[in-house]
Amino acid sequence: MKQTIYSYQQLYLFAKKIFLQIGSSEANAGAAAEVLLSADLRGVDSHGIARLTGYVRLWEVGRINANPSIQVVHETPSTAVIDGDKGLGLVVAPAAMQVAINKAKNVGTGWVSVKNSNHFGIAGYHAMMALDNDMIGIAMTNASALVAPTFSVERLLGTNPIAVAIPAGTEPAFVADFATTTAANGKLEILQRKNEDAPEGWVQTKEGASSKNANELKNGGALLPLGGDKEHGSHKGYMLGSIVDIFSAILSGANYGPWVPPFPAYVPMPENLPGEGIGHFFGAMRIDAFRPAEEFKVHMDKWIQRFRSAQTVPGERSVIIPGEPEREMEAERRNKGIPLLPAVIEDLKILGEKYNLELQ
Amino acid sequence: MKQTIYSYQQLYLFAKKIFLQIGSSEANAGAAAEVLLSADLRGVDSHGIARLTGYVRLWEVGRINANPSIQVVHETPSTAVIDGDKGLGLVVAPAAMQVAINKAKNVGTGWVSVKNSNHFGIAGYHAMMALDNDMIGIAMTNASALVAPTFSVERLLGTNPIAVAIPAGTEPAFVADFATTTAANGKLEILQRKNEDAPEGWVQTKEGASSKNANELKNGGALLPLGGDKEHGSHKGYMLGSIVDIFSAILSGANYGPWVPPFPAYVPMPENLPGEGIGHFFGAMRIDAFRPAEEFKVHMDKWIQRFRSAQTVPGERSVIIPGEPEREMEAERRNKGIPLLPAVIEDLKILGEKYNLELQ
Repeated sequence: MKQTIYSYQQLYLFAKKIFLQIGSSEANAGAAAEVLLSADLRGVDSHGIARLTGYVRLWEVGRINANPSIQVVHETPSTAVIDGDKGLGLVVAPAAMQVAINKAKNVGTGWVSVKNSNHFGIAGYHAMMALDNDMIGIAMTNASALVAPTFSVERLLGTNPIAVAIPAGTEPAFVADFATTTAANGKLEILQRKNEDAPEGWVQTKEGASSKNANELKNGGALLPLGGDKEHGSHKGYMLGSIVDIFSAILSGANYGPWVPPFPAYVPMPENLPGEGIGHFFGAMRIDAFRPAEEFKVHMDKWIQRFRSAQTVPGERSVIIPGEPEREMEAERRNKGIPLLPAVIEDLKILGEKYNLELQ
Repeated sequence: MKQTIYSYQQLYLFAKKIFLQIGSSEANAGAAAEVLLSADLRGVDSHGIARLTGYVRLWEVGRINANPSIQVVHETPSTAVIDGDKGLGLVVAPAAMQVAINKAKNVGTGWVSVKNSNHFGIAGYHAMMALDNDMIGIAMTNASALVAPTFSVERLLGTNPIAVAIPAGTEPAFVADFATTTAANGKLEILQRKNEDAPEGWVQTKEGASSKNANELKNGGALLPLGGDKEHGSHKGYMLGSIVDIFSAILSGANYGPWVPPFPAYVPMPENLPGEGIGHFFGAMRIDAFRPAEEFKVHMDKWIQRFRSAQTVPGERSVIIPGEPEREMEAERRNKGIPLLPAVIEDLKILGEKYNLELQ
C-alpha cells in the first residue's frame, strides 16, 4: 500500500494544534502530542496519530475533559490513587508516573493506581520516564473488553498491556511493552487491511471455536489471551490480563472487566458502571534502593550481551533484546520521517478541515 | 499408575524430621516442611515432597546451609536486599516476604530482592502470606536455565514463575501462580512418565526446531517461553521470564540467565558465576494504601462473580478464577490425604533409611 512520509515535527505540531483546538492548555497539548507520536516513532502505528480522530470524537461526545484537574485522592509514602478527572490518558498518565517517580525518590519505590482516565497511548512511553532517574519503570492499563478468558465466549478483558523499562549501562535500556493477548488488536487490523488469515490462537468465534478469520471480532468473536488455548497456557495470559485489570481499576476505583468504556465514541457505554473511567497502574523503583546503580548496570550490560550473542535458530540474526526493534525504528523515523497509510491521511485531513488546520 | 495415600501430617513430619537431621533449627525445619508440603496440598506435585531428596543432596554437596543467617544488607523505607546465606529457599523466602509485609505496614508497600538463596518451593505460598494482612502479595524467582528465548537454541532462562495473590471479600482470594513458559517442567515430566507426546509449542530440539518429544530436554532441547513461537507471542513469555530474572537476581546480586545454579546436585555448577546463589523477588502492597480494604473487596467479589458466571464454550462448566482449582485440591487433600507415586515413595524410603527415619 502506498504510504506518504511526514516528518515527526509535522505530525507533532498537527496533533498539538488539534489538542489546543479542543481546549487543552499549551502544556497539556504538547504533552499529549508527544505521548501520541511516541507510538508512531516506535513503530506502534495502531496507537499513534492514527488514533487522533478517535480521541477528538471522545471529546466531542463529552467523554474527555480537555483540561482535567488531576488530583491525588489518597496516598501513603510509597503509594497514591489519582483521579484523572476524565482527562486525556495521554496527559493523566505522565502526571501519574511522575508521582510514582517522586515517591521513589523519597522512599525507594512509588506505586500509583489511576481512575477516571482515558486511553493513555503506548505503555512503554510512561515506563521509560523512569529511566533517566536510574529507576525501573512499570506501566499498565486496562482497556475495553475484546478478550475472552480461557473457557469464556464472552469478552471480559481488554488487551491490558504491561510495560517494564530497566536501565542498563553502555547498552541501551531493556524495554518490554506487550499486550497480554497472543497478538495485539493492531496486528489483527494489519491482516484485515491485507485481507489475510490470522494464525490459530489469536481469535475465536462467538461460540468459542478456534478461528483464522482476522475479522472474527466483527462477528462477535474475541481475541485470545497470550497462549491461545488452555493446552498452550492461555490461562496464564488470562491471569496476566486479570492482574493488570485489578491493579489498574480495582485498586483505584476505575471500571473493570466488561465495564471498561470503549474507545470508539459511537459504541455505547456499558450500563451500571461500577467505577469511573479507565484505570492505569504505574510503578517506579529506584535502582539504588536495592544496590548501587553502577553495579546494577554492569550486570544488565552483561545480561544483555549474553542474550544478544546467544546461538540462534537457523535463519535468525540474533536473539532480540526487548526494546531493540522499537529503538531502531525510532532512530530511523526521527531521521527519515513517519510513513502514513492513505486511510490515516484522509482521516487526518477531514479532522483538519473540521478544526481549520492543514496537515502540511 | 498405582498411588499410595499419605496424610498431610505424615508427610509434614517426615519432611520436618529430615530437615532437623541435616541440621536445621526446629523453627526452620517446621517452616521448610510447611512450604514444601503446601505444593503437595495444592496439587503442584512436582514442587513438593518429591523434591525433598533433591534438597538434601544439595546440602550433602555443600550448596545449602541448613542454618543460614538471613540478613538485610541494604534497605530503604520500601525496599530491601536480603542475603540468604546459602539457606534453603524454603526458609529464606518466607523471611524475605515477611520483610516486604513489614515495610508495607509502614509505608504502604514493600519490595525485597534476595540473593544467595536456593529453590523456594511454590511461589504461591509466599505471595499468599500477604492475604491475612489485607495486602496483595507478589513472589517470583529465577531458576536454572531450561528455556530458550525466542530465536535462541541456547537455554538462557529458567521457568521463572510469577505469583500474585489478591484478597477478596466473601469470595476466596485470587491467586495466580504460573511459570513463564508454555508449560511448566512438571507437566513435561507427567508426559514422560506416561510416555506421551507433548503438544507443539512446549519444547524445541537442540537445533531450535519444533518438537513433540516430551524427552527433548534430555537431547539438548529447551522449554519454550509462554506463547511457544514468535507468531504466537513467545517474545512476550521471553520478556516475562527476563523481567523475573532481572528483578530477582540483578537487583539483588544473585546469579542470572545461564549462570543460575542447577537444582540437581550432580549437575556441575556453571563457571565464572556473576553473582551469589539463586535470586527471588517479593512484593507486598497494603490495600488500604490505595483505598479502604472493604471497598476494594466488594469490587473484587463483583469481578470474581462476573468472570465465574460468564457464558462458557461448549463442554466447560465455568471460567476458572485463578487459585480455585488449587484451593479445591487443598481442601480435598487435607481431608483425604496426598497420593504419592511409587517412584516418589521409593525415593523417600531410601532417604529415610539414610537418616534413620521411617515414612509411616
